[in-house]
Amino acid sequence: MQTIFKGGKAFIVKYCNQCGSKLSYRISKGDDRPRFICDVCGIIHYENPKMVVGCIPEMEGRVLFCRRAIRPRYGKWTIPAGYLENGETMEAGAIRETLEETGAKVEALKPFGLYNLTFINQVYLIFRGRLIDDHHQAGNESLEVRLFKEEEVPWAELAFSVIREALHTYYQDRLNEFFPFHIGDIQEA
Amino acid sequence: MQTIFKGGKAFIVKYCNQCGSKLSYRISKGDDRPRFICDVCGIIHYENPKMVVGCIPEMEGRVLFCRRAIRPRYGKWTIPAGYLENGETMEAGAIRETLEETGAKVEALKPFGLYNLTFINQVYLIFRGRLIDDHHQAGNESLEVRLFKEEEVPWAELAFSVIREALHTYYQDRLNEFFPFHIGDIQEA
Repeated sequence: MQTIFKGGKAFIVKYCNQCGSKLSYRISKGDDRPRFICDVCGIIHYENPKMVVGCIPEMEGRVLFCRRAIRPRYGKWTIPAGYLENGETMEAGAIRETLEETGAKVEALKPFGLYNLTFINQVYLIFRGRLIDDHHQAGNESLEVRLFKEEEVPWAELAFSVIREALHTYYQDRLNEFFPFHIGDIQEA
Repeated sequence: MQTIFKGGKAFIVKYCNQCGSKLSYRISKGDDRPRFICDVCGIIHYENPKMVVGCIPEMEGRVLFCRRAIRPRYGKWTIPAGYLENGETMEAGAIRETLEETGAKVEALKPFGLYNLTFINQVYLIFRGRLIDDHHQAGNESLEVRLFKEEEVPWAELAFSVIREALHTYYQDRLNEFFPFHIGDIQEA
C-alpha cells in the first residue's frame, strides 16, 4: 500500500477527504497502478511527489548556511530549503525559505539543479541567489546562521545527501566558472 | 478557502483522511497561512503544487505531437506530458507519458524548461528527448499522433499556453543551435 510522507512521518490515507467514507486501495479501470478510491463519491485520491525549493545564498565567494533547529537532523548544517506552497512561484518559494531560515534576502535567482528523491517522493530544485547584503539572523527553524568560505564548509555535518551533492557540484562549477543546469538522482536521506 | 485542483476540477478538503473527522481551516501556531487541520488527530493536511513532466520528442528536425482525446482541450494538439507519479524520476515520468500518449520511445532526455503555473498550482518540467525510431501510434488519450516539421506546427490549435511558450522558446533555441535551461511563469491555461 502506498505510503504518504508528511514532515518525515509516514501516513496511509484511510478516509475520503470529500465525504468521510472509508477508501478502497485498488486499480481503477484504465489505470495502471493502485490508488486510494472513494466508492461512495467516486473520487480518486491521487498522491504525487512534492517539490522542495532551496537556495545557495552567495556573497563574495561565501555561502550562507543554517544549522537546523528542527527535526529531522537537528543541529546539522544545510542551506535554506522547504516545500513549495500553492500559489507560489519556485523562485518566490526559495526567497521565502531563505528569509524564514536565515533572515537574509536573496535576489537574481538562477536555477542550479533539480534532484529526484524517489525514496521520499520529493523533487528538490536548488537555485543560486545573490545576497543583497550581509544581514542575517537565525529564524525559528535555525540554531545558527553563518557565511562560510569553501574551506570552512562543515561537510561531515551536513543534514542531507541532496544538499551535499548539490554543494559538491556547485564548488566544482565555481572552479570552472561555468554553471550548467544539473539534474540528478539522490538515493538516500 | 484553499481550493484543490484535481483533473481540472476544484475540490475543497472537508474530512481528515486519517480519522474521518471534519476539518478546520485555520492558521496553526507558528504557521503563516491557513491550512486544513484535524482537531481530533492533530494532523495538518498540507496541499502543495503538483509536477507535470513532459517531453519534446525529436527526430531529424521534426517533433512528435499528439491530439488530445480527453478533456480539457479535447481535439487540440500538444506534446506528451502528465503528472509525475510517486516513486518515479522526472525523466522516467516523461518517458512513460510519451509512451502512453504517442506509443513512441524517447531516450537521452535533457531538461529544457521549468514553468510556474501558480493559477492551477502546477509546475511543468519539459525535457527534449530523442525518438529511438519513427514508430508511433495514438494511445487511449490521443486521437492522432504526428511528426511535424516546424512549418507544420498547428500553433492556433495548441492545447495549453505552457506548451505554446515552451515550443516558441524551443524553435528559437534551434535557430541559435544552443539550448540553455529556461525558467518561466505562465499566466493562463
